[in-house]
Parts: sequence; C-alpha cells; structure tokens
Amino acid sequence: MIAISEPSAVYANPMTVEFAKGHGTGNDFVLLPDDAGTLNLTPERVQRIADRHKGIGADGVIRVTQSRNVEGATPSDLWFMDYRNADGSIAEMCGNGIRVFVEFLRSTGRVTADEIDVDTRAGVLKVAVDPKGYRVEMGIAQPVVGDITVETDNGKWPAVGVSMPNPHAVAMVQDVDGVGSLLEAPEVLPQDVFPNGVNVEFIKVKGLRQLKLRVFERGVGETLSCGTGVCAAAFVARNKSGETGLTKWQVDVPGGTLFVEQDDTNAMTLIGPAEIVAHGTLDAHLWN
Amino acid sequence: MIAISEPSAVYANPMTVEFAKGHGTGNDFVLLPDDAGTLNLTPERVQRIADRHKGIGADGVIRVTQSRNVEGATPSDLWFMDYRNADGSIAEMCGNGIRVFVEFLRSTGRVTADEIDVDTRAGVLKVAVDPKGYRVEMGIAQPVVGDITVETDNGKWPAVGVSMPNPHAVAMVQDVDGVGSLLEAPEVLPQDVFPNGVNVEFIKVKGLRQLKLRVFERGVGETLSCGTGVCAAAFVARNKSGETGLTKWQVDVPGGTLFVEQDDTNAMTLIGPAEIVAHGTLDAHLWN
Repeated sequence: MIAISEPSAVYANPMTVEFAKGHGTGNDFVLLPDDAGTLNLTPERVQRIADRHKGIGADGVIRVTQSRNVEGATPSDLWFMDYRNADGSIAEMCGNGIRVFVEFLRSTGRVTADEIDVDTRAGVLKVAVDPKGYRVEMGIAQPVVGDITVETDNGKWPAVGVSMPNPHAVAMVQDVDGVGSLLEAPEVLPQDVFPNGVNVEFIKVKGLRQLKLRVFERGVGETLSCGTGVCAAAFVARNKSGETGLTKWQVDVPGGTLFVEQDDTNAMTLIGPAEIVAHGTLDAHLWN
Repeated sequence: MIAISEPSAVYANPMTVEFAKGHGTGNDFVLLPDDAGTLNLTPERVQRIADRHKGIGADGVIRVTQSRNVEGATPSDLWFMDYRNADGSIAEMCGNGIRVFVEFLRSTGRVTADEIDVDTRAGVLKVAVDPKGYRVEMGIAQPVVGDITVETDNGKWPAVGVSMPNPHAVAMVQDVDGVGSLLEAPEVLPQDVFPNGVNVEFIKVKGLRQLKLRVFERGVGETLSCGTGVCAAAFVARNKSGETGLTKWQVDVPGGTLFVEQDDTNAMTLIGPAEIVAHGTLDAHLWN
C-alpha cells in the first residue's frame, strides 16, 4: 500500500543508478557508468557512496563516461575517467583507479581493444592489457630539489622529492615496519619544498630491482597502495642503483604487487592487476 | 574469444550470488539471500566479502534463509538470521543487524507483516515496525557481580558489568571524548570477571533519559554502534537514576541515535533505523 501522502514512497527511486565495485592492489573504487552523461555526481553523493559504513565504501568514486560529457574536457569519444576522492573533491589521476576503470570498460563490453587511450584530468593516458593485468603510461618522473627529511615517532630519515606530477617524498629505510604506525602524517621538512602537502613513501630494497613500500597519502592516511607513489619509489631506487636503459622494478605494497618500467627519459609505466568484485544498483538513500 | 584452455574463463561464474548492503546506525552488513538454502558460506568467503578494500566491506555478513536450512536450528519456516562476523566466525545475535535483516525481508517482499518472529542462534526474537524504524525485543539484562574498573591511557573509571547475555562493562564518564582514542582495548579489571573478554561502553548522561555513548567491541575495536551495548548502557543508567516502570532512553552513538525501552522485569527493547543502500551480484573473485 502506497498512500499519496507519503512522499518518501512516491519519490523513493526516481532513477536507477548502476554501480560496480573494484580494486587494484587494495585501492578500491565505486564505478558509476554514465554513458549518457546525465548523472549529477555532487560531492555529497560521492561522500555518501564512499562512506564505508553508511554507503558502499571506497577510496574513490569514478564516473565512467566520455570526454564530451565532462565539463572542461576536450570533447571527444574517448572514455574519460571522472575521478573523485572519497571526500567529494576532484582528483586529476589515480594510477590504480585507471586500471580498474579499463577493466570495467572491457568486462562490460564497452571496449574490446587491448590498447586504449583514456582521457583524464591529467591528459590522455595509454593503457594496454598485460599478462599481469594492465600497463599504464604514467608520464615523466621529475626530481624535486631540496634537502628533505621525513620524521615519524620512530625516527628521522633523509628523503628524495619526486613529482609524478603530484608530490612525493621517498625515504629509504632499513625496515618499513620499523617506521611505526603511520596513524599520523610523517613530518616532512623543510615545509616550503611542498607547499601543497606531500605523499610519503618508505621503501626498502629487498632484492634485485625489488622494493617493499609503505605509503602515507596526504589527506587520507596510510593506504594499501598508491600508483604514483610506487612510480616515485621505483624512480628513486633506480637512480640510487645507477642502472640505465629500460628497467623493471617490482614493488610490494601492503595490498599486493606492482611493477614499474622506466627508460632513460624517465618515462614511467605502471603495471598491475585490476578486479571488479560486484555489480548492482544504488538504493535511493545514497542518491537522492 | 574464450579458449577451451582457459579454465578461469570457462568456470568464471558458475552461479550468480546476489547481495544487498545495509546498515543500522552505521553498523553495516552484506546480506546474502539464500531462500533455497544452497549457499555454502565458508569463513573464507565471508572474509573476502567483508574485506573493506578487496571485497564489498562490512562489519558482518548475514545469510538470509529459513530455519530449516540452518544446521543445528529447529527446522521451521521462520526466517533465520545466519550472522557471521567479518572474520568468518559465527555470532549468536546482532541488535543492529536484525533490524537490517527485517528491512531486507520487507523491502524485497519476502515479508509483508508489521510484526515478525526472527529465528537466530540466540533464539526467536520479536521484531516490529516502529515510526523510528524497527523495535527488537532483546531479552533480559542481568547485572554481572564484581568490583570492576575500566582503564585507558587517559584515565581509570569504575564500571558496571551487564550480561545481554554477551558481556559488557559500562563506565559513566564526564566526557566520552576525553576517554581517548580507543585504538587499543581498554583494560578491564579484575580479569576473572569476564573470562571470554568484554565489550566496553563509556557513557555520559546528557539530559533526561538521554545518553551519549562510545563503545569498544571485543575483537573488533571502536565501532559506530553496538545494539547490545546500547541496551547495557541504558540498563546501567536507569538503575542509577532509580526510575521504575516502563522507561525509554535515547542513546546517541557515533553512527546515529537508538532508543531503549525497559520494564521492571528488565526486558530490553531496542528501537532504531535500518537502511538498505545497494543491491547487486557478486563477481566470481569473491565467491569462487
């Protein structure tokens, strides 16, 4: 029985919003297919969907649409990764998210090619199928000049600044677990090197071209994985090793394993898995 | 193209497993409808589904079936809440989960009545529709004898033991935030009063029959809400107030607001909201 006097029943579900959930090395995303470009993805809706207890829960929400449906993008038929952080803010790129984005496009039949150009707010990036998942051309790593130190409750280490182009401070340590809990942001000095904050990576070389990594993402906290952080870490480790030519480093993060290729132009390619774990529809609570 | 030699493609999705996600005051659950009683819900599958990054994510997983499909239950047509903790272990009852369970039954048309007997491993419980959501007859609260203290990094407080029948230690404090971070379990002494561990509630009386509460659940950590903890807290607060007859206390938890009715037999009724936020199907990664 639906009484006319019950607006919540009458307007309960004015539209069906589909979603998928997926992850790349534990960095997880809710994907919202929006082929028609009609979804009004407000920051409040992103927050509600990404809430881990009262929503579905994710590190980020990705609207899956084409460039012509994105304000400010160059209109085209390219698939566009419209990425939002869990707090509703816009992010330019996400190295783990873009693999999950392409896995979604392919697993739903939207794309059949093994290579695809993906449009993002950081420009058009090439993604290709790889035996280990997907390979993403992440752009050029650049050193950030400065005599940087990183400090936690458990110690203080020299660090190297890297722009991917988002900012990273990478510290080589004897034991990534010995760094401590990372519940609080490590202190990075001098502060004026990174006026907009910085992501911090602690790395240990565990074998030939093999790293173990923990990461503290600015504004988030310690995470299971960070694609640009993994590239920055491999860049620092290769520079320290003195190797040149095309190299491939394995980086073990808390959420899994990623690989980074680098050439002498410092072009970084991130390689790793992507999984879709569920498909469905949002109930009205999350969208209205 | 699917080649015969690719077992992962051939056996990719041998069955479709449906799910819903919902929450009650921020205590969240994945529900798995299993009307036919054919789902083999192993601890590993529960862990994978409840994983907040690589699965859907939840505090618990609830198989929705009837008593005749549950090993060890009295066979009947009653709906049975087959509750599992996120770690895959079995739990007898969950005061927030049972409201979400009934909301699922009603919103999917499995149940149309406003009152329903729900079978659980703690016995058959009565649940009824209420203007504030659902009311659940939670059973009799009983004091636990002992001269109990609860200690955190920020202080030490006397506490009252309560069996709901799961164990609780309830401490009245001046400021629930002043108790500290609750990242670690509070120390409850003497240890022999609660040989199987104990849930700890910190409460402050904030008005007439109004409490503010924070809870540390044994084996979990601080949570947004705990149904039996809210009942235990209201029981202690009413005893301290000296009131008798039928009373109704409001308890504000980090995830929302619950209400507790109590009569002179110490029968506790928990009242609060329940929401379903998404429906869908699991992908093969989570189930196989």
